[in-house]
Amino acid sequence: MPDDFERMWTDLAGVGRSSASGGYFRQPFASAERECHAWFCAQAEARRLRLEHDGNGNTVAWWEPSGATGDAVLTGSHLDSVLDGGAYDGPLGVVSALAAVDVLRDRGFVPSRPLGVAAFSEEEGSRFGLACLGSRLAIGATTPAAARELRDRDGVALLDAMATAGLEPEIGPAEWLRRVGTFVELHVEQGRDLVDRGTAVGLGSAIWPHGRYRFDFTGEANHAGTTRMEDRHDPMLTYAMTALAANKQARLAGQRATFGRLEVGPNSTNAVPSRVTAWLDARCESDAALAALVEAIAKQGADRAERDGTALAVTAESVSPAVVFDDALTRRLAQAGAGPGDGPARPVIATQAGHDAGVLAAAGVPTAMLFVRNPTGVSHSPGEHAETTDCLAGVEALADALEELAR
Amino acid sequence: MPDDFERMWTDLAGVGRSSASGGYFRQPFASAERECHAWFCAQAEARRLRLEHDGNGNTVAWWEPSGATGDAVLTGSHLDSVLDGGAYDGPLGVVSALAAVDVLRDRGFVPSRPLGVAAFSEEEGSRFGLACLGSRLAIGATTPAAARELRDRDGVALLDAMATAGLEPEIGPAEWLRRVGTFVELHVEQGRDLVDRGTAVGLGSAIWPHGRYRFDFTGEANHAGTTRMEDRHDPMLTYAMTALAANKQARLAGQRATFGRLEVGPNSTNAVPSRVTAWLDARCESDAALAALVEAIAKQGADRAERDGTALAVTAESVSPAVVFDDALTRRLAQAGAGPGDGPARPVIATQAGHDAGVLAAAGVPTAMLFVRNPTGVSHSPGEHAETTDCLAGVEALADALEELAR
Repeated sequence: MPDDFERMWTDLAGVGRSSASGGYFRQPFASAERECHAWFCAQAEARRLRLEHDGNGNTVAWWEPSGATGDAVLTGSHLDSVLDGGAYDGPLGVVSALAAVDVLRDRGFVPSRPLGVAAFSEEEGSRFGLACLGSRLAIGATTPAAARELRDRDGVALLDAMATAGLEPEIGPAEWLRRVGTFVELHVEQGRDLVDRGTAVGLGSAIWPHGRYRFDFTGEANHAGTTRMEDRHDPMLTYAMTALAANKQARLAGQRATFGRLEVGPNSTNAVPSRVTAWLDARCESDAALAALVEAIAKQGADRAERDGTALAVTAESVSPAVVFDDALTRRLAQAGAGPGDGPARPVIATQAGHDAGVLAAAGVPTAMLFVRNPTGVSHSPGEHAETTDCLAGVEALADALEELAR
Repeated sequence: MPDDFERMWTDLAGVGRSSASGGYFRQPFASAERECHAWFCAQAEARRLRLEHDGNGNTVAWWEPSGATGDAVLTGSHLDSVLDGGAYDGPLGVVSALAAVDVLRDRGFVPSRPLGVAAFSEEEGSRFGLACLGSRLAIGATTPAAARELRDRDGVALLDAMATAGLEPEIGPAEWLRRVGTFVELHVEQGRDLVDRGTAVGLGSAIWPHGRYRFDFTGEANHAGTTRMEDRHDPMLTYAMTALAANKQARLAGQRATFGRLEVGPNSTNAVPSRVTAWLDARCESDAALAALVEAIAKQGADRAERDGTALAVTAESVSPAVVFDDALTRRLAQAGAGPGDGPARPVIATQAGHDAGVLAAAGVPTAMLFVRNPTGVSHSPGEHAETTDCLAGVEALADALEELAR
């Protein structure tokens, strides 16, 4: 099995990787992500898994021995990346799922329920701005009407992007997902909890509520040389103060606030800008704290806009309330590595990152997450990493979970 | 003549104009600017002016009656715009020059020196980052070797862009410019000096020293949700503080500092950025003040970088020292509208904007500038404006100047 895992990992290592940064550019329905997807289909076929594609860009590879009945057990993750992302966020869950199927077959295990390996589409929201788009559409958490309005940075609509990639888009609730009784997603950890605890694999307890908010700062373009400082209405200044305020508010409250994406118009060196559009990513331990944080940042921005003679409009593009994973299932899987009567062998930790598992859990699907240790905690970055021995421990833990669930 | 001016103005009004903002996008060697250039050539031919194209993308239309000898008198300006710029910055000088030729012919005037109308290329630096590129190359202020390194935002090299546009680039000092004994550039004012003085036309005394400086802020990309605020090395924060500091320093010193252009990497909503590149446009009343201003901003940025665990590198991309226009010529042209013994009829004002006239003056060509009143002072913006009656007064003033110089 280690060989299979490492072979699969090597297959994917070069796909969509920037030689400059070492990071990955696997935006949904573009060539590198499509190459990963084709690779996934080939791997499934090599394992004689039945491929099922829904109209949302999601694909499931089914292991359905004759006689397998009842609610399905689902595992998997996603193959797309953030811009200049790491190798593990997403693909580790898909590759580990395929490797877990190999492990179970090596063990001679035959599932008595259908067992599916999913590759969800546009989990990062890096192209159309809405994270977990594939799972949201499939489960009905995002309406087809809302998704039809989505555009990428070049103005390309979701359905056009899918059609250009050769898909036959038919977005909306997916029949296959109704068959799923349990979902277990394995993911690289995006923090250092497991490093601090000295353990390779942990379980997820919950996902912090989080949201994306578009901050539109508008002012007045003018000549950068001839316009006196006191005659300006410069939205860049309003933005700069708001970015510093967001950081300070989040720091003081022990929460998270980030302005990582920005568009400036006209973006000329010798012109005072007319507009700055910035996206706030905010995450808090409770829904109330999230609302309070965003309100405080927007208020400080609006106050500064008044002083600058600019304007600020804040639009919530997506807000995900807190998600708690299935407690009984999580405790059972945490216990799996320990003897009877012991405490939980695997730590159970919260995360601030969104996942398809969060979307399914919020919709009522009993769901658990497995995390694999990340030595530096760095993620959404070329520096993201996991040791192969830890990944293999993750595969074993996932195989154990699937064996128990699909028995 | 008013009809000719207005007809020419109407010809250009729609070329490269955004229907969304009403602003102009006439980047050098791209379609809209090329359309303006073709229009200029057609206008010159209709006036039986001899076209001369140099290898830098500059074009001169010569009025050379038989017997015209000696140093040439040059006028004109540029046809390119900043991104989302106004209608007047550049084209007003070219259209007024052609209209002035019409005025002189109506007067029955025949120049005894060659009289040229120039359209300089890439005056704004909106594509290749170096303002007054065409005049700098033609006069030898920028070397061909340095220009060959220039790339636009898509990585296209200057010479490739020129070749794609159908030009035959042969960059470097231009023979035609050696023939020029005097240059007079007419330009829309980019401030409100003439408004305050209640006069339609003024002369330029000098151009403030100014420069463009690239600020490269580098940090560490990471997950926007899972990375604790205290574990981040976020270059966006360093940039934000530096932008506020630049504004404050310039305000306190009565100078100008602007961050109007920005590039963020990877520019993802859910990732702490790894880098922010920002361009500072700074202008001061003296060379020493400019150096001090940029040093103060860089120092505050570097101090904050230390606190943020980020790094800041500052690169001067272009620095233009103060330029003083030809004093005797300027006084003569300022006096032109007044009777003998009167004070100067036209005000003489300094500007913070760079111009091809500044490049030629710095190289020793006797040069003067005429400014036409701008009701709001707004420039480098769709809101830039000049009243037609003021423009026509500008044409008359330019015709007077050319008549005196080419007599």
